[in-house]
Amino acid sequence: MMLNTDRVNRVLNKLQQDALLVMDPYAIDYLCGKHFEPGERFLGLLLRKDKEPVLYVNALFRFDDDLGLRKVYYDDTDDVTAMLRKDLDPNQSLGVDKIMPARFLLPLMEQKAASSFALGSLAVDQTRAVKDRHEIELMRASSHVNDLAMEQFKKLIREGVTEVEVADQMLAIYKKLGASGYSFDPIVAFGDNAADPHHMPDDTVLEEGDIVLFDVGCVVNGYCSDMTRTFFYKQYPDKEAEKVYNLVREANEQSEEMLKPGVEIAMVDKKARDIITNGGYGEDFTHRLGHFIGLQDHEYGDVSSTNHNLEEAGMIHSIEPGIYHPGIAGVRIEDLVLITEDGHEVLNHYPHDIEVIG
Amino acid sequence: MMLNTDRVNRVLNKLQQDALLVMDPYAIDYLCGKHFEPGERFLGLLLRKDKEPVLYVNALFRFDDDLGLRKVYYDDTDDVTAMLRKDLDPNQSLGVDKIMPARFLLPLMEQKAASSFALGSLAVDQTRAVKDRHEIELMRASSHVNDLAMEQFKKLIREGVTEVEVADQMLAIYKKLGASGYSFDPIVAFGDNAADPHHMPDDTVLEEGDIVLFDVGCVVNGYCSDMTRTFFYKQYPDKEAEKVYNLVREANEQSEEMLKPGVEIAMVDKKARDIITNGGYGEDFTHRLGHFIGLQDHEYGDVSSTNHNLEEAGMIHSIEPGIYHPGIAGVRIEDLVLITEDGHEVLNHYPHDIEVIG
Repeated sequence: MMLNTDRVNRVLNKLQQDALLVMDPYAIDYLCGKHFEPGERFLGLLLRKDKEPVLYVNALFRFDDDLGLRKVYYDDTDDVTAMLRKDLDPNQSLGVDKIMPARFLLPLMEQKAASSFALGSLAVDQTRAVKDRHEIELMRASSHVNDLAMEQFKKLIREGVTEVEVADQMLAIYKKLGASGYSFDPIVAFGDNAADPHHMPDDTVLEEGDIVLFDVGCVVNGYCSDMTRTFFYKQYPDKEAEKVYNLVREANEQSEEMLKPGVEIAMVDKKARDIITNGGYGEDFTHRLGHFIGLQDHEYGDVSSTNHNLEEAGMIHSIEPGIYHPGIAGVRIEDLVLITEDGHEVLNHYPHDIEVIG
Repeated sequence: MMLNTDRVNRVLNKLQQDALLVMDPYAIDYLCGKHFEPGERFLGLLLRKDKEPVLYVNALFRFDDDLGLRKVYYDDTDDVTAMLRKDLDPNQSLGVDKIMPARFLLPLMEQKAASSFALGSLAVDQTRAVKDRHEIELMRASSHVNDLAMEQFKKLIREGVTEVEVADQMLAIYKKLGASGYSFDPIVAFGDNAADPHHMPDDTVLEEGDIVLFDVGCVVNGYCSDMTRTFFYKQYPDKEAEKVYNLVREANEQSEEMLKPGVEIAMVDKKARDIITNGGYGEDFTHRLGHFIGLQDHEYGDVSSTNHNLEEAGMIHSIEPGIYHPGIAGVRIEDLVLITEDGHEVLNHYPHDIEVIG
């Protein structure tokens, strides 16, 4: 637990302002190896191009570790923006975190604590999007646990069970496998519920012939996994559902196949979308192909038609095409993928084959 | 589910600006009876003194209910601040929500969408602090479930159990009693852990003679409860722990006793603090006496030495004195209380007596 000077330097190199006030607890964790959950209280890491970093933290969260930076404690009766202003140069520009709440930003602006205020957190977000070697190891470990968990989630499926009953047992399974918790609330969807990509587990009872969709992830050593598999309960899918499944599978595998440094991210989305569109289900693939992930389940960067950036070695994101057509099928197949120096590595190893369970 | 014009008018009467952009999902729920969890996406309710309200919501959350206001849907590719600007008068002042993130606020300011920008959400916060009749009924119901749950939590206590094992069983108990979930993650603290007011359940094993502290709450029909009781496992407390318990109990009951409209809130904190200080434990009562509560577990308003506002009929807040002295005892006794026209009503009915369990 120490300021990661390599990461800080990568951020400062990208930063367009003279200083950056980082407030996102995950970004702060990423940069100085310590996680706080400040709730409504101010938490800020000030990075300056001409001086050492400073961490502002409520005295409630006082800690002993030497993080290799200056700490400033305040308490609930202090005016923290006035304290922060002492470390700011009113003649320098300040980049602020995109999440900075108005209750802290407006007072700093009224106090003219910087020569200009602009959104600056992109410099951290872009740095976080490219994982370093240590992070890659942790992301592999988290997805490995997720693969093992998927095997066990399948076994929760039996006649008459409800989605909520299945979902309620997942956390214990993850914890036994070494996860600290969910990376997001699990999606368990039976039958036509699978055709709603935002469905949350409810009291729907499983019936023979249902689709069973699991979109699940856990946190291991602080890093997130996220995988979706779609199963069929007791009956092989009918012809149209089989076609839907195979289209989604093809979209997943062919878009993964093209991943390597230098590929435009929008083209990856296009590959998957074209396959589904040519198969006649373009209107039913209603979301982006994927999102970046790391310390948080959803991080900056999406895999969509609007992202014209290029894939870089170290990037990790999901590939999760889906077709949502009530009455026919709801299918999504999602993996996490790492861009490597000369290609890619799929972090999930649970198979993509059509699988009849129960 | 409909715009609550009485609440909107109370807010606009308090508002110092010409318009207010409400972004807090709970404040929006409070004002228009509909709850969204927009995540990172923009959600805004624009209240204007000279025009009808407008709700901006992502098309992902499209809904059919007629809330009695104009809805504006946007999608992820739209520039939502540019859309918002069309409904703002650049010659009028705008109050913004204290939680408004910089990524929305800075673009609006750059576009000069209002003549001035200031924090305006206090008008909603102060309105929410005084519950109306409907809310009071729901708060009573939530605390009633919490009272019933406390009876059952006690029964989870047995030799060798860990805090986490106890905590993991609480949600199911709440749900059986009709709650939709926790109002906050439950605190279960054994022995000296009770002397840390921020302790979260861990693998500490219960031992004979331990203190068992439960700080727990649930959500019923959207409204929160929050109660703390401190028990003793198998052994009556020793003389010093008994003294600590009785001081905390006296601080709780005497500060509750003085509650009625017109009492300065700081004086309520002082009453409890004086009792504990005169008993010799002033240094070990390390937090404010209470907090306001309603749709959220912690709402605007605290019961502390710095709150010079007066109690008003309809206010609901916690009264939760504590003494945290490792080696002697960690004790907190917390109730929710409602200020009535001529006094107060304690919403929790679980007794305050010293109780030996197990």
